[in-house]
Amino acid sequence: MLTESGSLICTLMHVHHNQLELRTNGKGLYEITENVQSKIKACGMRNGTVTVFVQHTSCSVVIMENADPTARRDLKEFFDRLVPEEADYFTHNSEGGDDMPSHIKMALTRTSETVPIVDEEMQLGTWQGIFLFEHRRAPHRRNISVTIIGEM
Amino acid sequence: MLTESGSLICTLMHVHHNQLELRTNGKGLYEITENVQSKIKACGMRNGTVTVFVQHTSCSVVIMENADPTARRDLKEFFDRLVPEEADYFTHNSEGGDDMPSHIKMALTRTSETVPIVDEEMQLGTWQGIFLFEHRRAPHRRNISVTIIGEM
Amino acid sequence: MLTESGSLICTLMHVHHNQLELRTNGKGLYEITENVQSKIKACGMRNGTVTVFVQHTSCSVVIMENADPTARRDLKEFFDRLVPEEADYFTHNSEGGDDMPSHIKMALTRTSETVPIVDEEMQLGTWQGIFLFEHRRAPHRRNISVTIIGEM
Repeated sequence: MLTESGSLICTLMHVHHNQLELRTNGKGLYEITENVQSKIKACGMRNGTVTVFVQHTSCSVVIMENADPTARRDLKEFFDRLVPEEADYFTHNSEGGDDMPSHIKMALTRTSETVPIVDEEMQLGTWQGIFLFEHRRAPHRRNISVTIIGEM
Repeated sequence: MLTESGSLICTLMHVHHNQLELRTNGKGLYEITENVQSKIKACGMRNGTVTVFVQHTSCSVVIMENADPTARRDLKEFFDRLVPEEADYFTHNSEGGDDMPSHIKMALTRTSETVPIVDEEMQLGTWQGIFLFEHRRAPHRRNISVTIIGEM
Repeated sequence: MLTESGSLICTLMHVHHNQLELRTNGKGLYEITENVQSKIKACGMRNGTVTVFVQHTSCSVVIMENADPTARRDLKEFFDRLVPEEADYFTHNSEGGDDMPSHIKMALTRTSETVPIVDEEMQLGTWQGIFLFEHRRAPHRRNISVTIIGEM
């Protein structure tokens, strides 16, 4: 808050960078909604946007139905059928059958998502959660950048 | 615009949140380009970005060809064939055959889109329009958050 | 940096708009990571985000594996098989067989991507590059908007 000789009051915008680390244990969706929300509360950003950016090319970020676990299971199953591991035309497979499919599933979904913030709360709809969508079979450590821009 | 003893002139950045409500009447694309543009004009944001964020998991936001209606019809038809309602492995179907396909089509497209603003105008290409992509058969009321960040 | 009577020091946020022009020569991925990074260096933005927005509906922006060219070739091949040119139900084909498939591939990928910036560097993961994904056969001139928001 900047006050100049009592006549001007304005709120300055700021940028806050945060990192999340998540350990995954096979294909599927891992919810990170609360992890992101807690970063917003921690920096006290009242009004702005948060950008969730996953720093990998074999997993994604998606906003998905957060109430029924079967919706996430069906989503994973759809992608496994749409991008089968045994496709005979893949040439990028040095890391195994789930190597190339993981990049394709990532390109079909999202690397980042930007969500509005009002009064320190993400403006998600009732059934929206933020998820990391892991496309690899083996356990992985995933880095997610959380950038908050707005007014305190 | 902040002037301090005549020596410093700088433009402060601001955040403006807006809501759009749209009533849909079955699957397909509904253009919202002018609705978004009018929010920018209304707040007088000259220079920045606008983030259009749909607060649901059974519809999407997409930027699509805005001139030929057949392009939108073919897009809808492609998604209906790619994600058929009668897939026998779906278990999340309490709201009917278009329940799980709507979440999958959402994940395959986008929940938000961020567009640059210059001189109060979105910098869309000639053939780009912003559309809500409805994936449910029944009429729905859809909430869209429009966040404008930039300089006045 | 704004200093007011010695008691307040704060960094003001700014918006910088830039344009990239890229000539493509057929379907496939064209890396633009360094083009975007050089725009950040040129304006000296230290801390914030960059939004890369492609102003067309027949090409996309994707973040993809940047090390092995076969990963990009397999990605292109997957999309060519997922959205075949000869689909008999397409009605939007006035510009040829790759007309409607190019819009569908665009909707399945992304029109924009937002990447965090720390110390003038995009916070991409080790294997992440930013690519324009061209979906048309013929050579095209592509316009990409690069919007940098943050603190100097």
